[in-house]
Amino acid sequence: MSGGKHLAKGSQKPELPDDGILRLYSMRFCPYAHRAHLVLDAKNIPYHTIFINLTEKPEWLTDYSPLGKVPALQLTKEEGNPALIESLIIAEYLDEKYPEVPLFPKDPLKKAQEKILIERFNAVVSAMYKVFLGGSEAAPGALTEISKGLDVFEKELSTRGTPYFGGDKPGMLDYMIWPWCERSAMLKYLLPDKYEMDKERFGKLIQWRDLMINDPAVKGFYLDGETHAKFMKARRENTHDYDMLV
Amino acid sequence: MSGGKHLAKGSQKPELPDDGILRLYSMRFCPYAHRAHLVLDAKNIPYHTIFINLTEKPEWLTDYSPLGKVPALQLTKEEGNPALIESLIIAEYLDEKYPEVPLFPKDPLKKAQEKILIERFNAVVSAMYKVFLGGSEAAPGALTEISKGLDVFEKELSTRGTPYFGGDKPGMLDYMIWPWCERSAMLKYLLPDKYEMDKERFGKLIQWRDLMINDPAVKGFYLDGETHAKFMKARRENTHDYDMLV
Repeated sequence: MSGGKHLAKGSQKPELPDDGILRLYSMRFCPYAHRAHLVLDAKNIPYHTIFINLTEKPEWLTDYSPLGKVPALQLTKEEGNPALIESLIIAEYLDEKYPEVPLFPKDPLKKAQEKILIERFNAVVSAMYKVFLGGSEAAPGALTEISKGLDVFEKELSTRGTPYFGGDKPGMLDYMIWPWCERSAMLKYLLPDKYEMDKERFGKLIQWRDLMINDPAVKGFYLDGETHAKFMKARRENTHDYDMLV
Repeated sequence: MSGGKHLAKGSQKPELPDDGILRLYSMRFCPYAHRAHLVLDAKNIPYHTIFINLTEKPEWLTDYSPLGKVPALQLTKEEGNPALIESLIIAEYLDEKYPEVPLFPKDPLKKAQEKILIERFNAVVSAMYKVFLGGSEAAPGALTEISKGLDVFEKELSTRGTPYFGGDKPGMLDYMIWPWCERSAMLKYLLPDKYEMDKERFGKLIQWRDLMINDPAVKGFYLDGETHAKFMKARRENTHDYDMLV
């Protein structure tokens, strides 16, 4: 609805058709917004995307997202057109409201265990960002932290004995951690020594990654490591261009 | 199972009866563990409590809680006796597994909206801790931040027009924010100017607090502001005694 361009401060509030279709406020390179795209796409739910410039935020953004964050999902079929925020809350809402393609396990225990793994992936995320933003010199030990964090997931895939965490196809855990797994391909471009995942240590995860790249929901929003790295390098210097793909 | 005492490094792993009763690893003054106690008590679910010394953690704690945190809830009726961590994940699991006393709304949208408010309460929590740990001099503006954060909840109660966020009785939102609301009574003892909530600005929240104090689940684990303050003051100087109530 913004033609892929990121709407900024001073922009007109987008006029959207009264078509009852969900509206996702997003940013093309935001991994948390990425989660919402993946769930919507995996469930084949139609939605409009409104991309937001997060440096110079539109004044009207807080009408949908009180803290000015993305993703925000506006529910245009519900009374008052309320909007939801927080990627995990949005993901679970969509899974409950649109149960046709279930992503979380039905069993409360299994579901809780998936959520705990999503939570534990945060250790990988924060270590990755140390490198993304500061490089390996600025964050000594961060690559070790990433590997230690990933050990948990390698072991989990191995224990489950399935190609995806969700079994024969991706489930909520697969999609919730994917945005950062996709972005880990940046490391090759951001680090002087061309970081590659250890093929012995992360055999299962490497197979998983290669499968995930071909999943239709992942494919639909996929960017390669070089593109992510281009955005990130510019972000480090605060010269990033939200519209670099438009 | 630890007679109210907090088990520390070097302690024996507690031997518990094979009675199928849930086991909660907790710390008497931890607000996140407090959430788990409230949900269990509100739902009348029997459980054993094992209190943990979080400064000198028992070596066996990671058998139940991989990151060494509380709360952890061990499910002794499930195969392999798995343990769950993270207060909100535990709370939602219990609500799904023990639906007799429902705490979250059934409707996915209403449930998501409760979760967003629980998330937004974090702004109040982090501002409170600035004062709890540093005093108002160390954290100028923190009292203003607390009040601004609470405005959202005052307005919400007013819009709902019910005594509790959950309606005629406390629901998940009530219990998830309560641990810090109980602890806000510390401010009177920790600040030189005897902080009291503004009776005009927070009329609904003050009524709510007075009702909550008399809720059976809240009553069962309640400590007054002076007691919380005593623990917190000692914690500031690292001289806190986990067993001060034993």
